[in-house]
Amino acid sequence: MAAWGERLAGVRGVLLDISGVLYDGGEGGGAAIAGSVEAVARLKRSRLKVRFCTNESQKSRADLVGLLRRLGFDVSEGEVTAPAPAACLILKQRGLRPHLLVHDGVRSEFDQIDTSNPNCVVIADAGEGFSYQNMNKAFQVLMELENPVLFSLGKGRYYKETSGLMLDVGPYMKALEYACGIEAEVVGKPSPEFFKSALQEMGVEAHEAIMIGDDIVGDVGGAQRYGMRALQVRTGKFRIFWCSLGL
Amino acid sequence: MAAWGERLAGVRGVLLDISGVLYDGGEGGGAAIAGSVEAVARLKRSRLKVRFCTNESQKSRADLVGLLRRLGFDVSEGEVTAPAPAACLILKQRGLRPHLLVHDGVRSEFDQIDTSNPNCVVIADAGEGFSYQNMNKAFQVLMELENPVLFSLGKGRYYKETSGLMLDVGPYMKALEYACGIEAEVVGKPSPEFFKSALQEMGVEAHEAIMIGDDIVGDVGGAQRYGMRALQVRTGKFRIFWCSLGL
Repeated sequence: MAAWGERLAGVRGVLLDISGVLYDGGEGGGAAIAGSVEAVARLKRSRLKVRFCTNESQKSRADLVGLLRRLGFDVSEGEVTAPAPAACLILKQRGLRPHLLVHDGVRSEFDQIDTSNPNCVVIADAGEGFSYQNMNKAFQVLMELENPVLFSLGKGRYYKETSGLMLDVGPYMKALEYACGIEAEVVGKPSPEFFKSALQEMGVEAHEAIMIGDDIVGDVGGAQRYGMRALQVRTGKFRIFWCSLGL
Repeated sequence: MAAWGERLAGVRGVLLDISGVLYDGGEGGGAAIAGSVEAVARLKRSRLKVRFCTNESQKSRADLVGLLRRLGFDVSEGEVTAPAPAACLILKQRGLRPHLLVHDGVRSEFDQIDTSNPNCVVIADAGEGFSYQNMNKAFQVLMELENPVLFSLGKGRYYKETSGLMLDVGPYMKALEYACGIEAEVVGKPSPEFFKSALQEMGVEAHEAIMIGDDIVGDVGGAQRYGMRALQVRTGKFRIFWCSLGL
């Protein structure tokens, strides 16, 4: 307990990953991880600022928040930092028109984006949308560009659903990188810009924040490289952390 | 012309890539590349030994040879070195039972292989078979193994069909490598073992052989690393090479 006290000294803000930390996706929307609903409620009653920092790219923020609320979590859309809105900002700033290889559930986030005559590709966790035909189309769009630009919403290797492990967007990003001989720009964890915007929304400095996630690369490595503290939870071990934190 | 004479001094055997060199695949089986049927015929009338060395993994050798013969090529099954038979040899030698993520057209090559209770994964150019579901199944099989073994029949980035560029097996190999944190064993070009067996079948030493292909990595780089000479042809430029060779 003393060790925890030291590790958390000066912490003013907590960034929470969602998938694998608060809930596991799956049939019927998924299931809350035991203890997590109460932990978030207690955290919000504490002196700490809270923000949800996710690489979820299958759902719009509205749908994600709706799902979390149905599972019992106290969360609003304005408290969530997610890669699709971050990508839209970048596309607008750089005047880019994407070919989208994304899940239908997140397509509404791109409603205000011009997708005619594409000059870049955006991939997200498309699930079943990662067909050979769709991958080949994204590949062909990139190969026709003089300067191919590929954005990947996160680069996670896989995630856990109630039915088992599922390939995330990262492997498909690697496939297109290799096919085209290019390097993708990652929007989402572990990108420094992504943590930066989440911290700005909280009004907390990096050294005052801790990231809690289940991904050693996206959550822990990325946060630590940005000067934050980080904690990796293993699905189902969430309650133990909160107890040790004394919340 | 003099330069060619020097480059080819001492050459006794010619290894020919098939796809992109002899023909481009596509609707109705594909089309012979202009000049290539005559070039192969002349080559076979010359003093040089000839072998066809392909990473084709969508079709069985029998089907590939049938297609080439219909396009007018003088070729027999025994003259072709292909990755699926090479993989079967390795699987038998090492007592491995594969989960197959391959095109239906090549499945017959694995008829004699035990695929029950798999302890490795073999991927080949599966084309439309590279669905999310099939990729996820291969991923799950690998993740359940204590020592995950992945064989990839070639690692080509893409190939040209008459309808356009198509993703090859390489990008999907990279996807599974990244997802599982492993490195695949490549069966086919540019693997040294693959060139070795092709040369043995010809009875020609590496320094006496030249590889002619369209892939800078699989054909040219691989052959040169194995001590062979190599020539990269660009699709449609095949005739020029043969003319300069004086055949």
